[in-house]
Amino acid sequence: MARVPHWRAVAIATAIFQAPAGAFMLKTLGFRTSRAVVALGVINSSSASASIKESVTNAYVKLCDRLREIDRLNGVQAVLGWDEQVMMPSGAAKARSMQKSALAGAVFEKRTAADLGALVSELRRADTTDVLGAEKAAVVRDAIRDFDHEMRKSKDMAAREAELEGRAYHAWVKARKENDWPAFAPLLSEMVHLKSEVAAATRPEMGVYDANIDVFERGMSRERLAEVFTELKAGLTPLLSAILDKIKADGDSSGDSSGALSPSPSWEVKKQEALCRQIAEKLGFDLEHGRLDVSPHPFTSGFHPTDVRITTRYSENWIEGIAGTVHEVCNVATQVGHALYEQGRRGGSDNDDFDGLPISRALSMGVHESQSLLWERMVFLGRPFWKFATPLFHEHFPHTAECTSEDFYRAVNKVSPGLIRVNADEVTYPMHIILRFELEQALFSGDLKVADVPAWWNKAMKDTLDVEVPSDAQGCLQDVHHAAGAFGYFPSYTLGAIMACQFYEAAKRAIPDLEDKIASGDFKPLKEWLNQNIHSIGSLYDSPDKLLEVVTGERLDPMALVRHLTRKYSELYKLQL
Amino acid sequence: MARVPHWRAVAIATAIFQAPAGAFMLKTLGFRTSRAVVALGVINSSSASASIKESVTNAYVKLCDRLREIDRLNGVQAVLGWDEQVMMPSGAAKARSMQKSALAGAVFEKRTAADLGALVSELRRADTTDVLGAEKAAVVRDAIRDFDHEMRKSKDMAAREAELEGRAYHAWVKARKENDWPAFAPLLSEMVHLKSEVAAATRPEMGVYDANIDVFERGMSRERLAEVFTELKAGLTPLLSAILDKIKADGDSSGDSSGALSPSPSWEVKKQEALCRQIAEKLGFDLEHGRLDVSPHPFTSGFHPTDVRITTRYSENWIEGIAGTVHEVCNVATQVGHALYEQGRRGGSDNDDFDGLPISRALSMGVHESQSLLWERMVFLGRPFWKFATPLFHEHFPHTAECTSEDFYRAVNKVSPGLIRVNADEVTYPMHIILRFELEQALFSGDLKVADVPAWWNKAMKDTLDVEVPSDAQGCLQDVHHAAGAFGYFPSYTLGAIMACQFYEAAKRAIPDLEDKIASGDFKPLKEWLNQNIHSIGSLYDSPDKLLEVVTGERLDPMALVRHLTRKYSELYKLQL
Repeated sequence: MARVPHWRAVAIATAIFQAPAGAFMLKTLGFRTSRAVVALGVINSSSASASIKESVTNAYVKLCDRLREIDRLNGVQAVLGWDEQVMMPSGAAKARSMQKSALAGAVFEKRTAADLGALVSELRRADTTDVLGAEKAAVVRDAIRDFDHEMRKSKDMAAREAELEGRAYHAWVKARKENDWPAFAPLLSEMVHLKSEVAAATRPEMGVYDANIDVFERGMSRERLAEVFTELKAGLTPLLSAILDKIKADGDSSGDSSGALSPSPSWEVKKQEALCRQIAEKLGFDLEHGRLDVSPHPFTSGFHPTDVRITTRYSENWIEGIAGTVHEVCNVATQVGHALYEQGRRGGSDNDDFDGLPISRALSMGVHESQSLLWERMVFLGRPFWKFATPLFHEHFPHTAECTSEDFYRAVNKVSPGLIRVNADEVTYPMHIILRFELEQALFSGDLKVADVPAWWNKAMKDTLDVEVPSDAQGCLQDVHHAAGAFGYFPSYTLGAIMACQFYEAAKRAIPDLEDKIASGDFKPLKEWLNQNIHSIGSLYDSPDKLLEVVTGERLDPMALVRHLTRKYSELYKLQL
Repeated sequence: MARVPHWRAVAIATAIFQAPAGAFMLKTLGFRTSRAVVALGVINSSSASASIKESVTNAYVKLCDRLREIDRLNGVQAVLGWDEQVMMPSGAAKARSMQKSALAGAVFEKRTAADLGALVSELRRADTTDVLGAEKAAVVRDAIRDFDHEMRKSKDMAAREAELEGRAYHAWVKARKENDWPAFAPLLSEMVHLKSEVAAATRPEMGVYDANIDVFERGMSRERLAEVFTELKAGLTPLLSAILDKIKADGDSSGDSSGALSPSPSWEVKKQEALCRQIAEKLGFDLEHGRLDVSPHPFTSGFHPTDVRITTRYSENWIEGIAGTVHEVCNVATQVGHALYEQGRRGGSDNDDFDGLPISRALSMGVHESQSLLWERMVFLGRPFWKFATPLFHEHFPHTAECTSEDFYRAVNKVSPGLIRVNADEVTYPMHIILRFELEQALFSGDLKVADVPAWWNKAMKDTLDVEVPSDAQGCLQDVHHAAGAFGYFPSYTLGAIMACQFYEAAKRAIPDLEDKIASGDFKPLKEWLNQNIHSIGSLYDSPDKLLEVVTGERLDPMALVRHLTRKYSELYKLQL
């Protein structure tokens, strides 16, 4: 099954999280205003209170203008990124990189502007929740957070980051192609050092690896992740063993016995395109406020809630046992999940007060993943979806006429330990993530040297999934993330999977006939529930745990995923657990 | 024949010419540095001379950094514009306009930055040709020109312009649709007033209409245009009368007697697309550094010489007597002409010192038009092209097998006075332009009131082309230009047609077997001659007249067009002139 490919993930991360860079202007600015406010409070507390309120409200309004300007320029950056991957002629790469760098410079100036600093300083000292209410206070909270991160990174540090990320990426592409770990190792070493330096500068209150996690998953820590993943691993290991024992004993009995779902010329590209478009619209993707295009690496890109673009690819073949089309419908579900979050953010309807403000943004990488995995794993990989989708497949691809919805359901839900994370099934996927989490911890603590990574990796793969790694290209060189400077990013994939379970369970409680509706092709209640409870909530809360508590009544609970997978695969593989 | 549609033209204008806006910071900045340089010259002339040289060279290097940054942001603006017209989902219009406005604000700040002003002031006083040479001196000349125009327009004036252009555009769309001149008239009146005010502020050394012309056609004046158009009208009127008399007497004997070139379902859209792509590449359009897409209004957009995109449209029908495909091939030739200019600008090859600097830009709207009209009228409307293209048409559209290259040539070269400029043939086209030039003069001088425009227009159409105007929608409301605030723009279309003749004659002198090469499908010598003599020359000279003199030995000469058309149509219509 095609899982969240790295390209899309990086694109999303770029769109959602803002790379901070700056110089320490903060300290020299803005104190004046806030001192004046405090002084007023001493002189006459009741008129001062009215005056503070007015002053804070005025500062808030000005702050919003600045933030919206930055948000719009971020949207422009996202347009350039999408165009580069989907439209740009190959010979324009150099000119485009210069255009992006000029724009990044202009955005940096806006993010670190003296007048923004003055507003931030004034609002930092105010009790904004009291004066402005919870939503506006959340805007202020995140504006301060962004500004601080930006200003704490020196211009030189930002330039070194950009330079190293470019160099490491190109080295990684070559090293993976040539299966040459020693060529990439020094770059990884440099990257760990630089990201430690950046972490210490921008998030001095945290440990360096915690700080890297915080870039993608606010409110999460190494310690908490270790707890979550320990519980998850303990819960999934017996399930996985039981499945593998069963397959060893009986062969894999799940799946398509007729062979109609295997790759063949019958899967015409034009029909795939029509089917994927039909399903994307059915799931609720709004083509008046989005596009569906083709690119070699599927991804979702949002310029604004009214312009969200997903891409997919079509192929008549596939290296594995199931036809590309099925993968592409899965990919469409994955991308639609991301896209619905983006289209559902505040600003999608006219005259939303919070359009373009931080509160309208996605809360974390994990929450974004949860929205894509909810549609991919809870919906697409579920029986009700195939009751709906099987007739559509029959219509577009008559050669599948003999396949029942149960055949489709079983074909897409096979467990098979493998080398490559992005191809992993939902049971083994968390093992790939836990391995990477442990690797990153060891790299940042200094317990593991980059030269020893391949041996470490290969042993971990053998221990966890009983898989022999034939080459580093299919092992420790497979992912782009570290070459792109993204450490602490992998955990979000599995946090998203856990949250997807919890959100889906909550949705089922709120909409008792949810799965009947899905089976009948009515996805609207689910979409609307997500819109209302997650998408439009954006970054109101300052951690996914708080969002989970409000929406589901529980904070992050890895056992939700364990229970779901155990129930599902016990039935599929006839296990006694 | 489909002529240069207004949308494309406006898009090109936006990409090439930079709307100035600013505040009078100029006067308060930068004098210090240049005074220091002058003072040095008094103290010790020889060491001062070395010191001046060093100081000017340093300032030039810094200036180039600033100009390149602005140029790259202009490229980003062009990407947004292209995306908006070709890709953007309809529901994103409001968000996109906010993104554009945020970016425009950032670009404005760069264009009017204090440090740019200081560099401009320093270089304004230096003899840059002596110190830097002619090419770099041209960079400085245009940087000063741009900066002055920018700074002389107040922020308020720029805002009023943007606001009125938006409002007038929407009023025009509605008024044209509803054939309601009185609804548009007050907007036109406002626009003439505002553009007079802008002209007086930004180009105080010129008359207001001259200043409007100068925005699109540097070095051109109302007076000179009046001379050129008087000569042109005098030359073309007898030709046109003779053609019309002949048609009246004999019927139009030119064109396709078989009917195969008329609209029919045989003109399949897919085949049109394939043919247009093949011809675009054959003409020299480089798809590694460009794209060919579909949009309702064909246009060319250049983000950089390495990323130039043309659009066309395909239709199985056409309102006139000749099939859409032939129009679309013509349109492709038109757009390729623009695109080759853009791809041939400096910066297209690696490490060009003048990449992103003003000298690499198109010299004027008229010169840009000349490049498109050279390919459209001198090549596409010529016999040699049809010797090459006819077999391609036979191959893609077998139903045209009986049509000879002479049939095609005659079908695309019919003279027929009509109401609509963009549909006009090459003999009547200049009459539409001269009418608009006279109209604009009368509006700016105050000799004509906007309420009287329809009557004036209809009389002029009757007098010039013997055409009755049935509605203002097909008369004085047909063009977008005035609603978009573009006065003095129309003349460039016909200046371009004249220059196209002169350039083509010069190319024929330089490449004696040029038309044999075209007939054999070898367009490379012509493209390379244009690359070398026009495209890469960019804005080295400060007027099209100087460019014409260098390339053709003559300045602008309307008789070149008169001679060309008289020769061509005397033969086609068997006239005795």
